[in-house]
Amino acid sequence: MTRSITKKDISRLDEQDPLASRRGQFHLPADTIYLDGNSLGLMSYATQQRVADTTTTQWGEHLITSWNRHNWIQLPQQVGNKIGRLIGVADGQVVCCDSISVNLFKVLAAALQLQPGRNQILSTVDNFPTDLYMVQGLEQLLGASRCHLVMVEESELANSISEKTAAVLATEVNFRTGRRLDLQALTATAQLHGALMIADLAHSAGVMPVELDNWQVDFAIGCTYKYLNGGPGAPAFVYAAKRHHRALQQPLCGWMGHVRPFDFSPHYEAADDMTQFLSGTPPVLSMCAVDAALEAFDGVSLAEVRSKSIQLSELFHSLIEQHGLSNELHLISPTDPVTRGSQLSYRHEHAYGICQALIEAGVIADFRAPDYLRFGFAPLYTSYADVWDAAGVLKDVLASKAHLDPRWQQRNTVT
Amino acid sequence: MTRSITKKDISRLDEQDPLASRRGQFHLPADTIYLDGNSLGLMSYATQQRVADTTTTQWGEHLITSWNRHNWIQLPQQVGNKIGRLIGVADGQVVCCDSISVNLFKVLAAALQLQPGRNQILSTVDNFPTDLYMVQGLEQLLGASRCHLVMVEESELANSISEKTAAVLATEVNFRTGRRLDLQALTATAQLHGALMIADLAHSAGVMPVELDNWQVDFAIGCTYKYLNGGPGAPAFVYAAKRHHRALQQPLCGWMGHVRPFDFSPHYEAADDMTQFLSGTPPVLSMCAVDAALEAFDGVSLAEVRSKSIQLSELFHSLIEQHGLSNELHLISPTDPVTRGSQLSYRHEHAYGICQALIEAGVIADFRAPDYLRFGFAPLYTSYADVWDAAGVLKDVLASKAHLDPRWQQRNTVT
Repeated sequence: MTRSITKKDISRLDEQDPLASRRGQFHLPADTIYLDGNSLGLMSYATQQRVADTTTTQWGEHLITSWNRHNWIQLPQQVGNKIGRLIGVADGQVVCCDSISVNLFKVLAAALQLQPGRNQILSTVDNFPTDLYMVQGLEQLLGASRCHLVMVEESELANSISEKTAAVLATEVNFRTGRRLDLQALTATAQLHGALMIADLAHSAGVMPVELDNWQVDFAIGCTYKYLNGGPGAPAFVYAAKRHHRALQQPLCGWMGHVRPFDFSPHYEAADDMTQFLSGTPPVLSMCAVDAALEAFDGVSLAEVRSKSIQLSELFHSLIEQHGLSNELHLISPTDPVTRGSQLSYRHEHAYGICQALIEAGVIADFRAPDYLRFGFAPLYTSYADVWDAAGVLKDVLASKAHLDPRWQQRNTVT
Repeated sequence: MTRSITKKDISRLDEQDPLASRRGQFHLPADTIYLDGNSLGLMSYATQQRVADTTTTQWGEHLITSWNRHNWIQLPQQVGNKIGRLIGVADGQVVCCDSISVNLFKVLAAALQLQPGRNQILSTVDNFPTDLYMVQGLEQLLGASRCHLVMVEESELANSISEKTAAVLATEVNFRTGRRLDLQALTATAQLHGALMIADLAHSAGVMPVELDNWQVDFAIGCTYKYLNGGPGAPAFVYAAKRHHRALQQPLCGWMGHVRPFDFSPHYEAADDMTQFLSGTPPVLSMCAVDAALEAFDGVSLAEVRSKSIQLSELFHSLIEQHGLSNELHLISPTDPVTRGSQLSYRHEHAYGICQALIEAGVIADFRAPDYLRFGFAPLYTSYADVWDAAGVLKDVLASKAHLDPRWQQRNTVT
């Protein structure tokens, strides 16, 4: 921008924001600017109400009858279908259950079994660690002849796919840098070489259009506690393209994945649909929270969400530049918003101290080792005024050197 | 008993019950007698309060800072240690996470890896199906040469242990019949043959003394939503004896099991303690519910719980006999309470109809295919008057033939 951004510009942006009314559905703590929805989304009032009702009435009052009466038994499929609509998936291909890690294990084993003669799982060295760890766990269990993790730099990913690649495992938006891969192109390249595509959507579901069906992605996993606002550690989701349902076998075959669980047969027989990805009994309280949280997406256009996400992040970085901070804070995220998720990451020697000083001043961002500062933008509830105010606080922190406070010398952060 | 049991006897039993005051900590729905705590325990008021606080304040207000501020990050270990005290385990050997099914997969893989040269997992054909399914899933993944499920009749279990047995997998209390195994003797026999002992405590944790450390049990899993009252589908627990911690490897190695998860290293390095059994991010709302539910056990003697459990079940069956119902309702559970858990199971051609008619009359029991009726006794909140009243309702149902109502012809039950 050639002229300075003013508070008046900000007001106009908020006034014209088609998503502005969604903010009222969420609880925003007083005197807080929350730019950490990429780690833990806000609680919506609908969710608060549903958790209370599920606890007090459904469990407390209706007890065991709620499995039928309140349809607890179908929650994994019901919530899964709602998530499916946000990631471009026809019904019956997503279930909500377990954690990302556990779901990835199921998917990895299923993918390898669909790919006899191929043993490589190709991923990036800076993928979210749990994704890499789960491959390593499977490799240790099966032996490298059946499962072998190959890690390459992100820039080398597409070029590294070969006839040995059983599956490409890639996170669409990098948790550290916010870099966004072209999942459609990557899937096409993978499949050209006979490889399957496994996408981790932890940082993309709910914040940008995703078209798994159209892009022909084979498997996906993702989390519900970031942009889907499902609550801390809420159950994750898993997607398997319908074309694979009949042939696949996943090894965590608990009773909820049985074709007739209430026959209590001693012999496992997998359901022939997405239900086969279920394992044990689902954590109902946490899953009801996810179900309720998804109501905030009713009638929302993800194209509009993406458009606002880009505007918010572009605005933030413009303000960093306007405040003369861009020499001190090194932008690690791509400058082109098309190749970026809904976060901006900056490198700074004292990133941890800055993060703590910001929190103390009421701006919640987060820190990632060794020296990254992340700002996440959640278009359902982040306003342009939030971005303006946060940039101002950041400027003040750096000017006052609050980030050099000795209290922040010892690192002790989580998630 | 030689003389009839009277309402006066019941009153005396309740008056003299040392656990009677615990009942007030739980929400009992009006006009309901709940004999299904072996499927889903009642909600305590402490749990109701904690879930509301965790949702509204910890998540809603304190957001991401709660991982440290409210110590969410240590919940699996903290809750695990509390459960450990109820199953005779010193701190640091139990964590609360995932489902029984998923935890069993971890344990099975770890046990097989500790037992090179042995491939058999020995279990009973009437074990809870998910336990058998998880072995079948691992067998399918690894091949029968590395993992092979052998199922025998319960009476043959001890005699079937051999030098091929990698591990014995047994549920202490059978979900259908309520039969209780002698876990201590079975563990000794298993170890005599060089096999490991894996115990499923789903129907024993919280309702009888269990002494895993004393009995030298190698691994255990169990659920928190039955007698521990953690809420529907609440996270399960897993125990591994400390002597195995250094040598074992479990394959679902997510980031929460890493020795330094917040280093975000691309290479997995397992924590060398019980933390290595963690995989993904824990479902905080559900886990806080378990944590709060365990408060009801503060100061409780499990010997007293067991004693009351036996008295409740003996009373129930005596009333069945007194009402002249024991010809029609065939007791499937052992008659000796020492070899029984905290439930009574009866076989009846119209078990499903009886269960539904009881529910309609305010007595919650449950049905298990094909023709079992289960009555569970939870000494923390079940009173002797409950048992008296339930037996009376059961008598009335059978006398009125309410169980033959055409509405109950189609079976549609869960859990």
